[in-house]
Amino acid sequence: MSSTVRFLHHPTSQPCRAVQQLMLETNTPFDEQIINLMDGENEQQSFKDKYNPTGQVPILCDDGFVVWESSAIAFYLNEKFNFPENWLGVSAQQRATIQQYCHWHTSFLRRGAGAFFYTHFAECIWGKQDYSKEIAKGRAILDDSLGYLENWLSKNIYLCGDQISFADLQAYHELVSHVAGAIVNETHWVKHPQVKNWFDTISERPHSKTVNGMIMQVGAMRLAGDLIPMTRKTSLAKGTEITLENYR
Amino acid sequence: MSSTVRFLHHPTSQPCRAVQQLMLETNTPFDEQIINLMDGENEQQSFKDKYNPTGQVPILCDDGFVVWESSAIAFYLNEKFNFPENWLGVSAQQRATIQQYCHWHTSFLRRGAGAFFYTHFAECIWGKQDYSKEIAKGRAILDDSLGYLENWLSKNIYLCGDQISFADLQAYHELVSHVAGAIVNETHWVKHPQVKNWFDTISERPHSKTVNGMIMQVGAMRLAGDLIPMTRKTSLAKGTEITLENYR
Repeated sequence: MSSTVRFLHHPTSQPCRAVQQLMLETNTPFDEQIINLMDGENEQQSFKDKYNPTGQVPILCDDGFVVWESSAIAFYLNEKFNFPENWLGVSAQQRATIQQYCHWHTSFLRRGAGAFFYTHFAECIWGKQDYSKEIAKGRAILDDSLGYLENWLSKNIYLCGDQISFADLQAYHELVSHVAGAIVNETHWVKHPQVKNWFDTISERPHSKTVNGMIMQVGAMRLAGDLIPMTRKTSLAKGTEITLENYR
Repeated sequence: MSSTVRFLHHPTSQPCRAVQQLMLETNTPFDEQIINLMDGENEQQSFKDKYNPTGQVPILCDDGFVVWESSAIAFYLNEKFNFPENWLGVSAQQRATIQQYCHWHTSFLRRGAGAFFYTHFAECIWGKQDYSKEIAKGRAILDDSLGYLENWLSKNIYLCGDQISFADLQAYHELVSHVAGAIVNETHWVKHPQVKNWFDTISERPHSKTVNGMIMQVGAMRLAGDLIPMTRKTSLAKGTEITLENYR
């Protein structure tokens, strides 16, 4: 196995940013390859055959071995590079708690990203249409998820204990997109003060600033009404809405 | 830590059956506690506070430690009991591949369970309504997911290699429900012959038969038109449809 891994990603993707920040925080040596989600590079069959049949990023290559799904990548990197124990847990119980969060995340908070996607990206891909139902659905999942986070953060400083872990990075980068796109605003923060404190604390980390640069710009462009040429179809648009003809 | 764990579950739940079969296959000592999803025991605040804020099963208790999310439970049990290496992987790469599958599963195949849920359980909970859009959505995700499974099973005998792993149990039990409820039928099998072979192979395992008893009965009841009194609201009904007033 090589000592340097190759990281395929795009900075507008929340799960990509979570893994990228994990690697920066842990001084993991990696080469990066930005995948142009905007022109559908990842939707090409050759890309899917080579890397990931779903076309999704992030993807990690370690010599001939390829792994995708952000949480699987994080646990793999931890085994390979022996990260400081806070990131993926030192005991079986800690690892289980972090993994539990990561699966909850996929079913709950991650799906709330539909609020951002249908507010800001859907129009860039499919033009002006009535996306209000999808936006409302995303917002409902997001609101529900914020309630869980508030509950957990009222018991511990971080989501899985008193130290920052990969679970926090996963959750944090979902919220970064929502903040960049003004989906999460003062009303949410007032209702979820522990989440706000936690969000601010993580935002102060130098690597957060590095990783968040592009999505903050993209958010600002969309809030100014500028369209971004893209063909990107995230997993949020796959499956869930696949049968709604007007969203194809 | 105790040498016997306590397993909270219900046999109509696909993720519960996957974990239950894993424990049976590995001779794991466990006490079981059936959670009555039918009368909403799991939706009580006291249950959520004690075990799992989402109200979902399966849940594993190991003395004072509680963990939920089927995949997190599986990896935890593997660390505690040192399962034969095929189940959760012997190397970091194998573990990553199995974990990759488990996360893909949550985003894809698991959401296809909406086809079963809205065909068979929604009417029992909310009465006769037009669930056709939700059923179509579930079927689209299911069909899409079967294509992935077919692709993987054309390369390997099992989903993550040449031996059965927990990934297979997760996928298998989704399909068991679809078969019990006649959602997956001959048309699907003709289109996905590798999946059919794999499904039949796993069905022949003695523990598959033990674990599948009740869901096959429930499926038969629903196919005969019998309603089953229930208040159960799975994660499939949470969030995704939360904003559709008529499904509340």
